[in-house]
Amino acid sequence: MNVSTICAIAAASGGALGVIRISGPKAITIADKVFRSTRGESLDKAMPYSVIFGQLKDGEELIDEVLLTVFRAPHSYTGEDSVEISCHGSPYILKRTLEVLIKEGCVMAQPGEYTKRAFLNGKMNLPQAEAVADLIASESAAAHRVAMQQMRGGYSEKLNDLRNQLLTMTSLLELELDFSEEDVEFADRQQLISLAEEIHTEIRQLTSSFRLGNAIKNGIPVAIIGAPNVGKSTLLNRLLRDDRAIVSDIQGTTRDVIEDTIILQGIQFRFIDTAGIRHTNDTIEKMGVERSVQAAKKAQIIILLTEPGVPYPEMPFREDQTVIRIINKTDSFQALTGKGVDELEKQLIATIPQKDSSALLVTNARHFEALSLADEDIQRVLSSLHEGLSGDLISEDLRQCLSHLSEILGTISTDEILGNIFQKFCVGK
Amino acid sequence: MNVSTICAIAAASGGALGVIRISGPKAITIADKVFRSTRGESLDKAMPYSVIFGQLKDGEELIDEVLLTVFRAPHSYTGEDSVEISCHGSPYILKRTLEVLIKEGCVMAQPGEYTKRAFLNGKMNLPQAEAVADLIASESAAAHRVAMQQMRGGYSEKLNDLRNQLLTMTSLLELELDFSEEDVEFADRQQLISLAEEIHTEIRQLTSSFRLGNAIKNGIPVAIIGAPNVGKSTLLNRLLRDDRAIVSDIQGTTRDVIEDTIILQGIQFRFIDTAGIRHTNDTIEKMGVERSVQAAKKAQIIILLTEPGVPYPEMPFREDQTVIRIINKTDSFQALTGKGVDELEKQLIATIPQKDSSALLVTNARHFEALSLADEDIQRVLSSLHEGLSGDLISEDLRQCLSHLSEILGTISTDEILGNIFQKFCVGK
Repeated sequence: MNVSTICAIAAASGGALGVIRISGPKAITIADKVFRSTRGESLDKAMPYSVIFGQLKDGEELIDEVLLTVFRAPHSYTGEDSVEISCHGSPYILKRTLEVLIKEGCVMAQPGEYTKRAFLNGKMNLPQAEAVADLIASESAAAHRVAMQQMRGGYSEKLNDLRNQLLTMTSLLELELDFSEEDVEFADRQQLISLAEEIHTEIRQLTSSFRLGNAIKNGIPVAIIGAPNVGKSTLLNRLLRDDRAIVSDIQGTTRDVIEDTIILQGIQFRFIDTAGIRHTNDTIEKMGVERSVQAAKKAQIIILLTEPGVPYPEMPFREDQTVIRIINKTDSFQALTGKGVDELEKQLIATIPQKDSSALLVTNARHFEALSLADEDIQRVLSSLHEGLSGDLISEDLRQCLSHLSEILGTISTDEILGNIFQKFCVGK
Repeated sequence: MNVSTICAIAAASGGALGVIRISGPKAITIADKVFRSTRGESLDKAMPYSVIFGQLKDGEELIDEVLLTVFRAPHSYTGEDSVEISCHGSPYILKRTLEVLIKEGCVMAQPGEYTKRAFLNGKMNLPQAEAVADLIASESAAAHRVAMQQMRGGYSEKLNDLRNQLLTMTSLLELELDFSEEDVEFADRQQLISLAEEIHTEIRQLTSSFRLGNAIKNGIPVAIIGAPNVGKSTLLNRLLRDDRAIVSDIQGTTRDVIEDTIILQGIQFRFIDTAGIRHTNDTIEKMGVERSVQAAKKAQIIILLTEPGVPYPEMPFREDQTVIRIINKTDSFQALTGKGVDELEKQLIATIPQKDSSALLVTNARHFEALSLADEDIQRVLSSLHEGLSGDLISEDLRQCLSHLSEILGTISTDEILGNIFQKFCVGK
């Protein structure tokens, strides 16, 4: 296959520095055409992992003075020859640099293409690649921790263990099949049952961790519901007061859509439809109620707020939702002064299942789906074993189970699966 | 003086990569405390200009896997020991990295502090330092070229030449003063006059280049003025049609405030108060007129637009403004179809004085002010010489002139001047 050499902006402009990444078989040759080292050395003789100062030029035009780092295959992020150009963070310079690189033979990278190449070149498996995007997006300590754990492969190890157990079962059963005419049960069925039960328990642990994992990754959706003027907006502002400052403190951390979120003990809580809360007075009453119902549906935690003499709003809740009831404007709770708000924060945190921070969590919907299918497969295996069905039937379900786990790891993957995964990445990663 | 070790985000988050810069006497020691190289090597033995892969940690907590580059004084941007950390571009990781660096003894860098240190350590003079900020902000080829020229010192050379000529004059005059009792004119007055005239011409060239230089740096303000419905909005859209696409093409080049601008032959034209144009129908007629008058005041080029049978708006113009008159909806000009718009673009470009692209341009208001004062000084010197005044009077004006040029170069500078300059920089540069 003819592999292209790709380029993209890896660090957004708007800062002091800009970084452009080149990767592919011609990365060093192309960089050499547009770069003049101050010392006059050519890039094909440059030491890998060394930084070289010089000029980036388009013919005679000086685009910028830059630092350039050379990486040689396979010792790079993508596993290919790669060059990183660290230039001044000017939109014009970044644009001109991409232009001259494309003129010399690079093509613009697709979203996630660097990481996709890293996966295809065996630098990481698929969950590790997916964790890179999660890591970049992480905004809370907990989201960061689970992404880091997954990127470092802890999660993949677990899946590989499961696959090995499944392979053991499969080979035991197939041995039985090979000698089936002799009507000998090589595999001790009881042993197979305990093995399958063990696998089932572990898969179940993973699937059941998704609710928490997903909440940690995306933040836990909270809705504040209550009649007009009971203090919803005041409570929201009170809950938000500290955290906002921290987020805006750090240069360049602003996001496109600013949601109302707080981070408590490293966990992010996302307040749903707070625009509705903030504009209660502007919205027609009916619309307000409809919005509350919608917000409540999307929430994992519902704070029902009222004040003395006003009944709680009546609303149907799902079993998987946590409802916290608060009477505002009393001796024990006052959103305005903050009295009792600490206690509410403790209640929010208490809704999170307490897991050892090193526990493996499934955070990815794709993994959850595949694990749910694997769960069904292994359950079928278990029933078949209990019913004493023959090995060939069981073997088929075992292979299915194995295949679903392999899909997560990317040992089985299609262009479509890869396309879906990497199109969600940013360009330059 | 006890120099602190500073840290800041150098590449804005929101991209795939984030870059944090550390600079100061303890840069390497502090980085060593939070970094574990994969190969186990310690940073104080690291080769300068080498990139090392490893883990960034806060105690036992793994913040990220990073690439770290070590620079040793004086071979760094600031001239100090420096470390650059290239991490995943996650807001959380960037925040945690700054936190752990500060815990280990770094302080947050002030805006422009890296470049200020580069200046104080003699890595660049003041116009070069100022050009760094211009370079980062540059959005057009011409703005980029003048910033690059200034950063590379072409402009400073010119100023140094002028200073040397002034020093020659001063020493000639002072020699005369030392022997003044003997009533001998050592300095040939005619020679001094031609020298002063030469200096005056060169300073004049610089000050007169500011109008163009400033326009190139900040874009040339254009106002489109006309009665309602003559086609102002159509013309604006027609002029903007191509350029917008280019700007939004490149990931991460969006700016905080999107102005309507076009770049023609590398020069940026800024359309003033186009919000008014776009919302002509919404604004009360009187307000519309008032806005037009304000826009026209701020413009360097005014496009007066009308249609057949409607007189041009009456408006007073300044001598330094260029007025382009266009009758829309005729055989030769149609904003709607674009007919004649190429010609208009040529007229816009023709308003720019044609300068050799290597000509020195003053782009900085601080330099322009100092040069204007130096211009007055050298004019006083000339009159004194013509009037045959004594050397000591002339000498004082020469010293003033020299001092104004030195201010630009930063050989004379105060904390206040430096403060004013660097506070406009971004943090991390």
